[in-house]
Amino acid sequence: MTFIDAIDYIGTYAFALSGIKLAASKKFDLFGAFIAGGITAIGGGTLRDLILDLPPFWIIDYSYLLITLIAMLSYIFLGRFFHCITNTLPIFDAIGLAFFTVVGIQKSLDTNIAIWAAIIMGMFTGAAGGVLRDILLNDQPMIFKDDIYATACIVGGIAFAILYSLNIQSFIVQLISAITVFVIRVLALKYKWRLPVMRKL
Amino acid sequence: MTFIDAIDYIGTYAFALSGIKLAASKKFDLFGAFIAGGITAIGGGTLRDLILDLPPFWIIDYSYLLITLIAMLSYIFLGRFFHCITNTLPIFDAIGLAFFTVVGIQKSLDTNIAIWAAIIMGMFTGAAGGVLRDILLNDQPMIFKDDIYATACIVGGIAFAILYSLNIQSFIVQLISAITVFVIRVLALKYKWRLPVMRKL
Amino acid sequence: MTFIDAIDYIGTYAFALSGIKLAASKKFDLFGAFIAGGITAIGGGTLRDLILDLPPFWIIDYSYLLITLIAMLSYIFLGRFFHCITNTLPIFDAIGLAFFTVVGIQKSLDTNIAIWAAIIMGMFTGAAGGVLRDILLNDQPMIFKDDIYATACIVGGIAFAILYSLNIQSFIVQLISAITVFVIRVLALKYKWRLPVMRKL
Repeated sequence: MTFIDAIDYIGTYAFALSGIKLAASKKFDLFGAFIAGGITAIGGGTLRDLILDLPPFWIIDYSYLLITLIAMLSYIFLGRFFHCITNTLPIFDAIGLAFFTVVGIQKSLDTNIAIWAAIIMGMFTGAAGGVLRDILLNDQPMIFKDDIYATACIVGGIAFAILYSLNIQSFIVQLISAITVFVIRVLALKYKWRLPVMRKL
Repeated sequence: MTFIDAIDYIGTYAFALSGIKLAASKKFDLFGAFIAGGITAIGGGTLRDLILDLPPFWIIDYSYLLITLIAMLSYIFLGRFFHCITNTLPIFDAIGLAFFTVVGIQKSLDTNIAIWAAIIMGMFTGAAGGVLRDILLNDQPMIFKDDIYATACIVGGIAFAILYSLNIQSFIVQLISAITVFVIRVLALKYKWRLPVMRKL
Repeated sequence: MTFIDAIDYIGTYAFALSGIKLAASKKFDLFGAFIAGGITAIGGGTLRDLILDLPPFWIIDYSYLLITLIAMLSYIFLGRFFHCITNTLPIFDAIGLAFFTVVGIQKSLDTNIAIWAAIIMGMFTGAAGGVLRDILLNDQPMIFKDDIYATACIVGGIAFAILYSLNIQSFIVQLISAITVFVIRVLALKYKWRLPVMRKL
């Protein structure tokens, strides 16, 4: 397991846990919680792969579903301990958001689509899983109202595009882009940044 | 029409009818009811085909949409008679669930994906149509809370995998797997089996 | 920009605006409104392209997302002026519906699917964007209850199929089919036509 894998798995775990927590708050059963966790963790990447006509990544590598299962078991059995780390969950979620966005952009560029489309695919990879989770649980998607989330992916994607156009080394581009997403997301949480709300005419 | 076709059509009819009944309870119009019936009957297989990058099965063979139409017409015109058979509907639904699961697994294996992924595809084929119906009708998906449904597909899928690994004849594998799904589903209904509910921490 | 492009863009603009208006009424933020507008405008065609295994049209040509952005900016900055033209919006929406339906049918036929399947794809192209918008905003899809919308696409599609089978010139087939959708939609609005509602048994 490389360092990159570790980050990927941390992000998957954090995303899955957010779906499982929400499912528990709605009294879903074990199966429902697993699906809610799974769609949060892999839904965004699946949407990206369907649009890019690639096989969904989780069908080739069972790690992602395994991590979702581990997330569910840890939620059930590590209950009390979990309360203590709940405050750190948004940090792991932000790591996942940053990592997924960059993976999504890179995987999209590898299929030769335009850079602006790759930025959108990166945003889907990072943020669409949570939207699909909210649809599945019959909630209004949180990210359309509550705070800066998908917007962090877009800004990180623009950073990627600028550095990419300067022919900077691939790893550096990815790293700076991911840090951009992460920092914006964490600052948005800390200072409660929000986008302007649309006014009804 | 072979015996297999007959089972396929019975399952499609039962699934479509469940969507149409729900649509009627929400005062959908004829078009809405048709779509609700159609998505229940063909939604799961369509999701499977999109993931496996196959053309959706109902676009090649119009039987499935025709059966959805017949289900709607029978609901409208055979109303009173229908009340009598409503109690048998869950049996037909269980037949559909069992059959769709096995078809989904077999069709997935034919594309050379791993057996664990094929089990998930079988579960999608059987159970995702109902989830898509609930999303479309703006309900919380029933199968995440109420009883054993998708879990029956999973158990039947595991039975399939075990027998398959023993190199047993294909037809026998499919038959036993389908019976497993059917029996679990019917017992779950009769004895009100449920999965444990997630507790909120 | 050809005449055809102009109609395409008018339809996209009208569809996007309907999503943005609904998002504003639910107090979505700028990002949420953009996504709501985008899914209304491009969701139907995207569903069609995924089913037909084509690359989604908006990933090849950024015009559609640009028009969605323009729709959002015009909603924000032209507020008061907008009130005056709100009454004409349904007309533009009907233009979009007619145009998208015909484009969807034609694009589907080019992939050699059967004509009845192409009619359904045309209906998806025209009407599914609004359904996806309603799902995203956690509403019950409007078109299943309120008036004649997708049905206009179906009738226009049948007109297309009849003329197509008579080997009439392609442009004439498309024009008459589009006019059929448009006229039915506008008459349905004016005279409040509705489909019969399903009765609960």
